[in-house]
Amino acid sequence: MDAKKLGFDTINLGHGSGGIMTRDLLDKIIFKTFSNPYLNQKHDGSIVKFNNEIAISTDSFVISPIFFKGGNIGELAVNGTVNDVAMCGAIPKYLSLAFIVEEGLQIDEFIKIVKSIKDAADKSGVQIITGDTKVVERGKGDKIFINTTGFGEVHPNANISTDNIKVGDKIIVNGFIAQHGMAIMSQREGLEFESTIESDTTNVNYLVNDLLNEFGDKIHLFRDPTRGGLASVLSEIATDINKGIVINENKIPLEKQVAAACEILGLDPLYVANEGVFITIVESDIADAVIELMKNDKKGINTVCIGEITNVHHNKVVMNSSIGGKRIVTPLIGEQLPRIC
Amino acid sequence: MDAKKLGFDTINLGHGSGGIMTRDLLDKIIFKTFSNPYLNQKHDGSIVKFNNEIAISTDSFVISPIFFKGGNIGELAVNGTVNDVAMCGAIPKYLSLAFIVEEGLQIDEFIKIVKSIKDAADKSGVQIITGDTKVVERGKGDKIFINTTGFGEVHPNANISTDNIKVGDKIIVNGFIAQHGMAIMSQREGLEFESTIESDTTNVNYLVNDLLNEFGDKIHLFRDPTRGGLASVLSEIATDINKGIVINENKIPLEKQVAAACEILGLDPLYVANEGVFITIVESDIADAVIELMKNDKKGINTVCIGEITNVHHNKVVMNSSIGGKRIVTPLIGEQLPRIC
Repeated sequence: MDAKKLGFDTINLGHGSGGIMTRDLLDKIIFKTFSNPYLNQKHDGSIVKFNNEIAISTDSFVISPIFFKGGNIGELAVNGTVNDVAMCGAIPKYLSLAFIVEEGLQIDEFIKIVKSIKDAADKSGVQIITGDTKVVERGKGDKIFINTTGFGEVHPNANISTDNIKVGDKIIVNGFIAQHGMAIMSQREGLEFESTIESDTTNVNYLVNDLLNEFGDKIHLFRDPTRGGLASVLSEIATDINKGIVINENKIPLEKQVAAACEILGLDPLYVANEGVFITIVESDIADAVIELMKNDKKGINTVCIGEITNVHHNKVVMNSSIGGKRIVTPLIGEQLPRIC
Repeated sequence: MDAKKLGFDTINLGHGSGGIMTRDLLDKIIFKTFSNPYLNQKHDGSIVKFNNEIAISTDSFVISPIFFKGGNIGELAVNGTVNDVAMCGAIPKYLSLAFIVEEGLQIDEFIKIVKSIKDAADKSGVQIITGDTKVVERGKGDKIFINTTGFGEVHPNANISTDNIKVGDKIIVNGFIAQHGMAIMSQREGLEFESTIESDTTNVNYLVNDLLNEFGDKIHLFRDPTRGGLASVLSEIATDINKGIVINENKIPLEKQVAAACEILGLDPLYVANEGVFITIVESDIADAVIELMKNDKKGINTVCIGEITNVHHNKVVMNSSIGGKRIVTPLIGEQLPRIC
């Protein structure tokens, strides 16, 4: 697919018209890239079949800049929704894909994004089955926004619910936090360390699947701390379960340069967005085995238990700090890093 | 739900943070409005079960202005996707709902839109089961964009496919065309007749269901001529089936004032967007019965047969004009009415 041969350099309003230009864009780029029997129906929608319950999750991606260290908005839009479906205890199968493009987007940028979507979809084992393209005038959007909605078959062994969480359950995280947010932030701020921090965007669905195969309903929750970071997700869980959560600061996996970037910018890594990170809350008797399995997967090499569920300080997250004190971890209130995903 | 009691007048970046402000917005407006067991899980996604094949369709709505004669972007986002699912021969059941809001949107406008979404969902018999809210800075969006993805159970009698279309099949349309596009256009242009033309946005899923109950696989296609209008949809079908389509200009249902508005603005109604209009292509022996059933439904009072499938001029749509000539109807090329849906 060569941008030069397409006959147009930029996306313009005609590409959102529903007429020949739309069809041209779809035929030359979208259908060509994602070709599969579902999409090739070229109907308003697609027909699929599931044998079990279905997990559905939707997200719009408005990240700025659209290309960043470690990824771009396209693969983020796939990985983000694939992971959300996986967090429901499901095996992601299909995605819908909807673009809102600002008039004037370079066609080679669009193609680069579309190819990343295809690569990320292949890596996650999902197919793009239906979509939509709208174009808005210059100054009424910001290059490109992408909505993906994901569909997955619930794993037969899964019983994921905050209702199952008990006092003593362990909280396990699969790797270094705050990388995505700090990659974007340092790029925006033009900091020197920008070249070394990369977004952690990736799919974790296969690792989740392996965990469910092995441990079934002894796994009580999966959750990915994206916007709002680890602090916000843990606070939400503490409120939902009406129990306490205790975490240990010195266990929280944080790379040195990410910690340094946070310090320079005055940000608390607990509130910084992640993309390839997830937590799982599991029965204490399987915690060691869960960690071992996760450490043997490249998406979980740095897995660690960061804390557990307690029957004190209900609805609150308390962190034992590295220097021996205790601190209540509140959820993020306003906006720390706008348009981080 | 009183905008004054919420504690904020506008949507701001903090409402897209994933932290307390996001949760506050969700709790006070979204969960309160759409409360149902799926959404109340407040997870990243929802779990549903279908007994049959599932039709899935996605659309982003970027219409401007967001409030227009006959509706607003909220109900449009529900009806548009409900109808796309219905066009697949399915019974719409669930929707996902994702907002991209421009910072500064008035909260009372947001609430009005959310309430319209709820009303439209209730009228269509669908539930909002999962969602997402993102906020972009002023000047990086345009008030509000909405993505809906719809899920429906394929009707057991349905066999909807262009492959089933035969020479002699009749093309039936459920009512007046070009109303949605001309309502928006005349409002944008500030024309005097603006007050009398209303968008035809509505759900047609129950009428589609009745047709499938009654006529099953003798119905070969449903399609809704939204962007690009009737001309673009018929042209696409002619290409897909590799047969000809003939339509009669004097049969095309067009209100006088809409025709007049089109003339003033130099627009061809065949290319103007519709929202509550659909065409169905059916076996000729059931055409009269289909029309009778449709005319007895308030969504099809003005149903008429506008033409048929022919074995001449393959891949083309030919219109017998009112004054006796013939005209080839080509699909829309560029952009006639940007941001019409």
